[in-house]
Amino acid sequence: MSETLQQPRIDTARLVARIEALGRIGALPGGGVCRLALGDDEKRGRDFLVAAMRDAGLEVVVDAIGNIFGTRVGRRTAPVVMLGSHIDTVATGGLYDGALGVLAGLEVLATLDDAGIETEYPITVAAFTNEEGARFAPDMLGSLVHVGGLDLDEALATRAIDGAILGQELQRIGYAGGDAGPRDIRAYFELHIEQGPILEDEAIDIGVVEGVQGISWTELTIEGRSAHAGTTPLRLRRDAGLAAARIATEVGAMVRAIGGDQVGTVGALTLSPNLVNVVAQKAVMTVDLRNPDEAILQQSEAALAESVARIGAEEQVTVERRALARFEPVAFDPILVDQVEDAAAALGLSSRRLYSGAGHDAQMIARIAPAAMIFVPSVGGISHNIQEFTRPDDLGNGANVLLRVALASADAIL
Amino acid sequence: MSETLQQPRIDTARLVARIEALGRIGALPGGGVCRLALGDDEKRGRDFLVAAMRDAGLEVVVDAIGNIFGTRVGRRTAPVVMLGSHIDTVATGGLYDGALGVLAGLEVLATLDDAGIETEYPITVAAFTNEEGARFAPDMLGSLVHVGGLDLDEALATRAIDGAILGQELQRIGYAGGDAGPRDIRAYFELHIEQGPILEDEAIDIGVVEGVQGISWTELTIEGRSAHAGTTPLRLRRDAGLAAARIATEVGAMVRAIGGDQVGTVGALTLSPNLVNVVAQKAVMTVDLRNPDEAILQQSEAALAESVARIGAEEQVTVERRALARFEPVAFDPILVDQVEDAAAALGLSSRRLYSGAGHDAQMIARIAPAAMIFVPSVGGISHNIQEFTRPDDLGNGANVLLRVALASADAIL
Repeated sequence: MSETLQQPRIDTARLVARIEALGRIGALPGGGVCRLALGDDEKRGRDFLVAAMRDAGLEVVVDAIGNIFGTRVGRRTAPVVMLGSHIDTVATGGLYDGALGVLAGLEVLATLDDAGIETEYPITVAAFTNEEGARFAPDMLGSLVHVGGLDLDEALATRAIDGAILGQELQRIGYAGGDAGPRDIRAYFELHIEQGPILEDEAIDIGVVEGVQGISWTELTIEGRSAHAGTTPLRLRRDAGLAAARIATEVGAMVRAIGGDQVGTVGALTLSPNLVNVVAQKAVMTVDLRNPDEAILQQSEAALAESVARIGAEEQVTVERRALARFEPVAFDPILVDQVEDAAAALGLSSRRLYSGAGHDAQMIARIAPAAMIFVPSVGGISHNIQEFTRPDDLGNGANVLLRVALASADAIL
Repeated sequence: MSETLQQPRIDTARLVARIEALGRIGALPGGGVCRLALGDDEKRGRDFLVAAMRDAGLEVVVDAIGNIFGTRVGRRTAPVVMLGSHIDTVATGGLYDGALGVLAGLEVLATLDDAGIETEYPITVAAFTNEEGARFAPDMLGSLVHVGGLDLDEALATRAIDGAILGQELQRIGYAGGDAGPRDIRAYFELHIEQGPILEDEAIDIGVVEGVQGISWTELTIEGRSAHAGTTPLRLRRDAGLAAARIATEVGAMVRAIGGDQVGTVGALTLSPNLVNVVAQKAVMTVDLRNPDEAILQQSEAALAESVARIGAEEQVTVERRALARFEPVAFDPILVDQVEDAAAALGLSSRRLYSGAGHDAQMIARIAPAAMIFVPSVGGISHNIQEFTRPDDLGNGANVLLRVALASADAIL
């Protein structure tokens, strides 16, 4: 794109109004929204989105897994520039997670329309099915199917936590489409709230997302022996609770020792029988380890395994390990990442590079096309929560960066 | 008692048969019993006991809190030698906890009858109301009222976990008595299963109980901040789960460092929201500390407080402490304790001194009279469990020790 082109700016008020309008669909009484994938409220959200796409003159395609694609034509028919995310939410979600990326895409197109800008390549706004994984597992299901990472029939057979079958739900809500969405993608950009506290903590406008951390989730089931807390000498105990606490403590110390981007969390820990005066017979705990570097992630996994083996032996308990999830880190396209950084700078916005700690559709699209993400600050780092909030100025900043990189990839016709 | 007297022996088969007969009242389908205090099954257990007392020619008294006393007359009317325990159980209890002490008391009297032995002092078999505390709090309620440690009216107003009022339940089952049980007690002996693994582990026949450990129960409520496990850097976390794990780990290390009879248990620990990928906002945990020495128990409490303060500050969480229970150690009467030890030796039984880690009616009676306890092994140390079991030989050994110390205190008339 020529630097001589007068850069248009998005209409923040219009973007915010649309986010709030979508936020009224599935709104919870105390704030926030519940649009679980393929439920009645998410169907109404889909209807809202498709109507907005049609109003904007986009060519709307719904594929067999329910992904929605709205395309603004370019001089050529392919490849497309794709701006995507999702509109499903967790059960007590906020207005911004997912919705921002989709609606900012629409705002980018509206801005191009207002400015009378045509592009060489088409620009597609995409909303992928079941990104959250709150109703159907796995998460990022729609984008995973789109890139061929999950068989369509297998995905359609997925059973919801409420017992419903994904394919039947798609039929029921009228979003079992027959067309194929665009797979020839020149560049994919996803604008998203950070869902973490780094940008706010450092007073940075834009997060330039270099990739997605690798994730390693392990469930440990520790079996000891139930015993009376008063009458059982320490040497005769097989205390599953103490073993669990020691492992969790070592996880905390280990990730601090590794440093850098390494994080580790024992978020779930359940003791049985969980009584004040009974030595726990059983403990079930999870360990969530993340690092953007696969080698270091493996190092942290090895350290966990060593702790488990040693502490298990010392406390005379058995420990069963089960892998709940394992994703290697994803690196976004270096050229697109640079473009995001450059766009922020050109707009006079501060930025920093960071890794996404959460999964996003962008990491699936990265399997078949150059992809990158733009983060904007989350107030208090809060997300997946009805208190999730991003300030209008930050929404506007992010959408302007999105506009700039979209134009750079789609080639405005001068 | 003269050593020239031919020592009678109890009838182990008769004792076991009676324990099994009581065990059929409130029997659970898979084994074990449920005779929650003042419930219908416990009423039938009371009826069984009172009938057995009347058959044995005992003078039966039921007091206003439902304690049952059956007295075999002596030449004098007071003071009495009391052999007591309880017949209520936890919801999934065994046949021996409590029942043994009461029914072995009856077996002692039957043995005296068989041998035609009269005593200078009366011998009273006592079954105290609501020892377990499984239905009404506090535990050891009947014996506590008997020694004046809890006001009768307050005790009668106690509400059960099922909503019933203790006094109304006593009326309903016909055990709201009007007489006073004997408080002029020359010696109190309670035979009980160990409910712990020490005797079995060391292959010892008889536990000579020196006293009851002091108990300190603390509930800690730790408040941190819920955060995304992937997106929140370690330095910005206030991880209530990590703080809880560190405190539990330090409790384990601290009690090992103190050594001796010190024990400590974190038996209950609950995280919120308890999800694999969310840093815990809140942790509620219990710490159970016990020691037979009050000074050392206080030392362990101080160490816990130090850990809580230091870890709370380091992890940037707030910790609220609530005392759930605090009982000072109880020392049994040294002369009676020696008698128990001597009786075991005279019977050719191995013995060791130990402290009770659990509460017993004996510790309440110890407030107003010399008291001591006799422990027999629990298989696997298991109690408060349908698998609770003590071998017939051990039941017989314990009852023979009880017989011997009862006779020593009641003065057989030669």
